[in-house]
Amino acid sequence: MTSSHPRSLALLGSTGSIGTQTLDVVRAQPGRFRVAVLTAQRSADLLVLQAREFRPAVVVIGDEAQYAGVKAALANQPETTVMAGAAALAEVAARPDVDVVLTALVGYAGLLPTLAALKAGKTIALANKETLVVAGQLVTSLARQHGAAIYPVDSEHSAIFQCLVGEQPEAVEKIILTASGGPFRGRSVQELAQVTRAQALKHPNWEMGAKITIDSASLMNKGLEVIEAKWLFGLTNEQIEVVVHPQSIIHSLVQFRDGSLKAQLGLPDMKLPIQYALGYPERLPNDFPRFSFLDYPTLTFEQPDGATFRNLPLAFEAMRRGGNAPCVLNAANEVAVAAFLREQIGFLQLPEVVESCLTRVSYLAEPSLDDYVQTDAETRRVAAELVK
Amino acid sequence: MTSSHPRSLALLGSTGSIGTQTLDVVRAQPGRFRVAVLTAQRSADLLVLQAREFRPAVVVIGDEAQYAGVKAALANQPETTVMAGAAALAEVAARPDVDVVLTALVGYAGLLPTLAALKAGKTIALANKETLVVAGQLVTSLARQHGAAIYPVDSEHSAIFQCLVGEQPEAVEKIILTASGGPFRGRSVQELAQVTRAQALKHPNWEMGAKITIDSASLMNKGLEVIEAKWLFGLTNEQIEVVVHPQSIIHSLVQFRDGSLKAQLGLPDMKLPIQYALGYPERLPNDFPRFSFLDYPTLTFEQPDGATFRNLPLAFEAMRRGGNAPCVLNAANEVAVAAFLREQIGFLQLPEVVESCLTRVSYLAEPSLDDYVQTDAETRRVAAELVK
Repeated sequence: MTSSHPRSLALLGSTGSIGTQTLDVVRAQPGRFRVAVLTAQRSADLLVLQAREFRPAVVVIGDEAQYAGVKAALANQPETTVMAGAAALAEVAARPDVDVVLTALVGYAGLLPTLAALKAGKTIALANKETLVVAGQLVTSLARQHGAAIYPVDSEHSAIFQCLVGEQPEAVEKIILTASGGPFRGRSVQELAQVTRAQALKHPNWEMGAKITIDSASLMNKGLEVIEAKWLFGLTNEQIEVVVHPQSIIHSLVQFRDGSLKAQLGLPDMKLPIQYALGYPERLPNDFPRFSFLDYPTLTFEQPDGATFRNLPLAFEAMRRGGNAPCVLNAANEVAVAAFLREQIGFLQLPEVVESCLTRVSYLAEPSLDDYVQTDAETRRVAAELVK
Repeated sequence: MTSSHPRSLALLGSTGSIGTQTLDVVRAQPGRFRVAVLTAQRSADLLVLQAREFRPAVVVIGDEAQYAGVKAALANQPETTVMAGAAALAEVAARPDVDVVLTALVGYAGLLPTLAALKAGKTIALANKETLVVAGQLVTSLARQHGAAIYPVDSEHSAIFQCLVGEQPEAVEKIILTASGGPFRGRSVQELAQVTRAQALKHPNWEMGAKITIDSASLMNKGLEVIEAKWLFGLTNEQIEVVVHPQSIIHSLVQFRDGSLKAQLGLPDMKLPIQYALGYPERLPNDFPRFSFLDYPTLTFEQPDGATFRNLPLAFEAMRRGGNAPCVLNAANEVAVAAFLREQIGFLQLPEVVESCLTRVSYLAEPSLDDYVQTDAETRRVAAELVK
């Protein structure tokens, strides 16, 4: 029961892990949200099922070859318009009947629709960290200019966001992002040389999509989160630390200038940060399973092993360089992860591809949007050569 | 540097552990606070030294026999008035030149001065938990009536208070108070029968006064904190839990209705919660030592052992009964702890005295202030008989 009108959602990437969990949250809060837009890149069948259940004003299928099929499947649902292609994503993200755009697209693809939504002054629930990694300065200045808020969906950033509620921004001394360490925590470089695609896809605590699961195993996910945090919370490079916390119960921490720390914690369940971003500033009641210390009597913490998991120091280095370096880092990693998932390269080559690209692609100190587009394209060409 | 005028402090109990640490905080924040009132029960020499350093408008020595000595020692300090006796405490707590009254008195003695300060609309920095334990309903309704704020100084309650900043009160599902477990955690009833005064006075993590150190060893301190939390945060009896956390790094937690938890953590140092209560809502910069996970790689949690440490379930029981039962609990405990410190009774008799008093002293469902005064006196008579 709510007296306010339902928040209208555009859900970019509705058939992936974050997308389907977002719809779980919407289902569990009847009357609170209205789904206005659903989009999927390729999963047409699931998109159609979702459209039949939530009856949005528009659905977008990214893969234009599947347009006719989706259109036919929704022929008897005249209130739902069917669109296709990348340009449609940017269009629907800016629709006047949308309050909140949840961007759950994978990788660089999230950038342009997010920019369109920001220009339209939409509130962004950001599950696509690559957007801020690639073009953090551009994205955050656009958000300020258009008075658009960006709320994080990543569990770590949601934790920081929750810890900052009611606090003065100038009172933040540093943040500490927690990292599970992934399935290969404690392994040596020699052992990492042997790991398989299947092993890398088994995350100890979180169920997620393939790309982010590999990134978690290689610690690149934490590296991307470091850069994301810098932009999301307006931090200096020195204000961000990472600690490995294998139980993934403390989702991250903030240390304040009086020496006090605040942490947000709970069971590893993405539905909580999703719901928080959609419902902010209200904490909506739910019946998600509750955390108990009886189930987690011991919480442990250790330094990340940057000598073995080289992606993490590479990401810090790209952040310090600034300019288009994080864009290079991200594009190189996307190509490398795709190649690893196709079993074209081994696990140890993931940071090698990234490091090579950071050396080979020309550095730009103050890139424009066009420069980012070109940096992304050039990096993908260079990386594609490296993984051949 | 601050643009606002210094906050004027009345420090009730300035020579004890909390009092001296409060003055450390004041020293470290030049220009931020002005000490208007200092009071001590018996430590006249330290009170005089403090008065010479901070030059308050008034000092109170509780022990009237020492009035002449203090007066003579401060004869060449005409700006400082010297007073003596219990009535003077209530008078100075209500002075118009005081903004914040920090009540660091030990035990039941804190009640009347706190009531006087509340009636004068002062902000209370509450280090005297017994005030809320004894008369929580009366104290909190008086605070509401006079628009007086109560900020906690206890580290656990400060943690809860910090976690609640910016949150909706109705979003709180429960709170979890952490307990170190004290020096006797893990011991059996048989072993507890043997423990000495000296052993009980050795707290593993916190340096505190004698009374609270014994209360920590017996878990009565946690029991009192449970009742304090009920009143401070307006909770039901069912919304308060206790977990043993021997490292005392997580100072307490709040669980919200969306399943999210927030914790406040840091090194065990009372100066932090003191500074937070005095500076609220601002977090003042300081150079206190910082917490690092490298020094605390493992945090552990366990159920409190209420079968062995019976004071904790007795406190929950007194809270559930309500009325004057917490007042009985507190007075019986004060007498029992004093007797233990005099080595008149053993450690296992601490809860026995409390339990007997809860049975023997007449129950009053809706006590007035007079009823509390009488309950306190009656309980002390009964308890004194029990410890003879």
